[in-house]
Amino acid sequence: MSSTPATSARATRVAAYAAPAPKAPLERITVPRRPVGEHDVLIEIKYAGICHSDIHQVRDGWGEGSYPMVPGHEIAGVVTEAGSGVTKYAVGDRVGVGCFVDSCRECEACLAGQEQHCTAGATFTYNSTDRHGDSTYGGYSTHIVVDENYAVRIPDALALDVAAPLLCAGITLYSPLVHWKAGPGKKVAIVGLGGLGHMGVKIAAALGAEVTVLSQSLRKREDGLRLGAAHYYATADEATFTELAGRFDLIVSTVSAPLPLDKYLGLLKLDGALVNVGAPEEPVSLNLFSVINGRKTLAGSMIGGIAETQEMLDFCAAHGLGADIETIRADEVNEAYERVLASDVRYRFVIDAATI
Amino acid sequence: MSSTPATSARATRVAAYAAPAPKAPLERITVPRRPVGEHDVLIEIKYAGICHSDIHQVRDGWGEGSYPMVPGHEIAGVVTEAGSGVTKYAVGDRVGVGCFVDSCRECEACLAGQEQHCTAGATFTYNSTDRHGDSTYGGYSTHIVVDENYAVRIPDALALDVAAPLLCAGITLYSPLVHWKAGPGKKVAIVGLGGLGHMGVKIAAALGAEVTVLSQSLRKREDGLRLGAAHYYATADEATFTELAGRFDLIVSTVSAPLPLDKYLGLLKLDGALVNVGAPEEPVSLNLFSVINGRKTLAGSMIGGIAETQEMLDFCAAHGLGADIETIRADEVNEAYERVLASDVRYRFVIDAATI
Repeated sequence: MSSTPATSARATRVAAYAAPAPKAPLERITVPRRPVGEHDVLIEIKYAGICHSDIHQVRDGWGEGSYPMVPGHEIAGVVTEAGSGVTKYAVGDRVGVGCFVDSCRECEACLAGQEQHCTAGATFTYNSTDRHGDSTYGGYSTHIVVDENYAVRIPDALALDVAAPLLCAGITLYSPLVHWKAGPGKKVAIVGLGGLGHMGVKIAAALGAEVTVLSQSLRKREDGLRLGAAHYYATADEATFTELAGRFDLIVSTVSAPLPLDKYLGLLKLDGALVNVGAPEEPVSLNLFSVINGRKTLAGSMIGGIAETQEMLDFCAAHGLGADIETIRADEVNEAYERVLASDVRYRFVIDAATI
Repeated sequence: MSSTPATSARATRVAAYAAPAPKAPLERITVPRRPVGEHDVLIEIKYAGICHSDIHQVRDGWGEGSYPMVPGHEIAGVVTEAGSGVTKYAVGDRVGVGCFVDSCRECEACLAGQEQHCTAGATFTYNSTDRHGDSTYGGYSTHIVVDENYAVRIPDALALDVAAPLLCAGITLYSPLVHWKAGPGKKVAIVGLGGLGHMGVKIAAALGAEVTVLSQSLRKREDGLRLGAAHYYATADEATFTELAGRFDLIVSTVSAPLPLDKYLGLLKLDGALVNVGAPEEPVSLNLFSVINGRKTLAGSMIGGIAETQEMLDFCAAHGLGADIETIRADEVNEAYERVLASDVRYRFVIDAATI
């Protein structure tokens, strides 16, 4: 069970759920957390969301796994200690940590507030190496130590459990929706209604856009409409691509299956954009005339910067948007992984860190 | 030789160079021109540029050829008659006609000044069917009748021969360069130094961007630098892709060969765009992570609207930019086609219409 580390003057060990080796089930271990530095905060983790990419990395899908691996980059908790130089947060503050915990702070991307694209490489929250050369361990844990500049404030209006998934799923959709100007008068499609897609529907609707869900089947249609979509179409039905031709200003694809891009580009208006936040490992096929006709954009987006993550949380708080979650105990994580892979979750599992 | 049609009260026949059948050499014939309607101008053609797509269509590369086919959509001439309702032009005015001569004027694209993307389908200058159901014949001819709203004014500062290629090659590059904000402080690469590419270098440099040519070899390097490029790299040299990684804000590709898109996307900065104005018929391969990392854009662009074509001509006149041309007699057109296919032209053939 959760307990505050004995001391923070030196590195401590905290409880966590980790995969000891590629494809092995997760199990309880302890991992080191660095001493709370001058600009660090120690966070008692309350909830950690389960992202599809956690499973992918644990199972070494990207071939870059470092083990034991503690996944988790959708972290919500409370500050329990603050370094002497910390100015943004105080003990008791509700904070979140997302996909990265450091970056070079000097490159064009960092200076543009797009730290996730740091030229030197951002330090990711887990399965990464920090600037001290130490491995990073993620949010399936009782505590984490993070530089205050890489934590964000969770507004009081958001409960910590439904806020946790916003740190990845929320910002992953918010950033492209805002960048490509979803809003009143705009027709926006969200491809895929999973953990990412369900936040896309909520956020795009809250931004004032007319939202359409494009899902393989109509199985989750009622959910989609409840979440804020005005329309719901099955992509398994070929008629969808005829009926919706030239319809959208913006399509955000959350799926990692290889899409027939030319067909989806055909659904865009003049100057429309198809933005991928999910993607398959393997190359996809594209006829360039699909972007030449109608001056269309095929683009990608990856999470978001720290400032816009804070902006997203404030936006979600103002609009009462949390994730739709199913809370689990830490020892249910392996079972939860199987259900995520079977698309059997509406829409995000969140681990109660008190059970670690 | 050129002569004014006997009358414009009814359809007339004018001299032209046409392909009588797919892949057949071009030969002199006569083709009908419609009576000069209330909003039409009769233009005595002075020069017509030879665009690579002329050859493609004559040889039925897109499988949609209508014969006899009179190519030519880079037309510069003088108004010799104006319909009673014409307000934009008077007899004696120097005018140009580009790739299309009509559109629906009502759809979102037309209203946005992007008539080339007309939802109902623009009427192209040749190898198309106009709204009266008649075939259109292009600029390898002595005269053409065009609605005044689909002609543009050629400023006095531009000679008609070097202005002709601007109607396709010029606007094809100007439109994406302006749309994607080439200008001071921006690093722009032009891929391919042919008829399109050489105008891209001139226009991007005149817009104030730092221009790099990416060409297969260094064969045309001196030309590239003379035209306004600051740098010139050979894409056959793998080191180019390492040295220039993350360098450009904008890359405009003018080539129709299938490019290794992932490598070119790697040359872009954060938020950079790779815009294709040339494209192969066949699908290309793309790893979507190439756009996800760095929030990059893969886009396309096709010529430009009427208003921006006028803006382009005014810009070129103000900056003294015409095409680099080689003027030929009409009976040299078949030989010129072979030289275009062999990339043996610097940088555009222009037919002297007085020789038709």
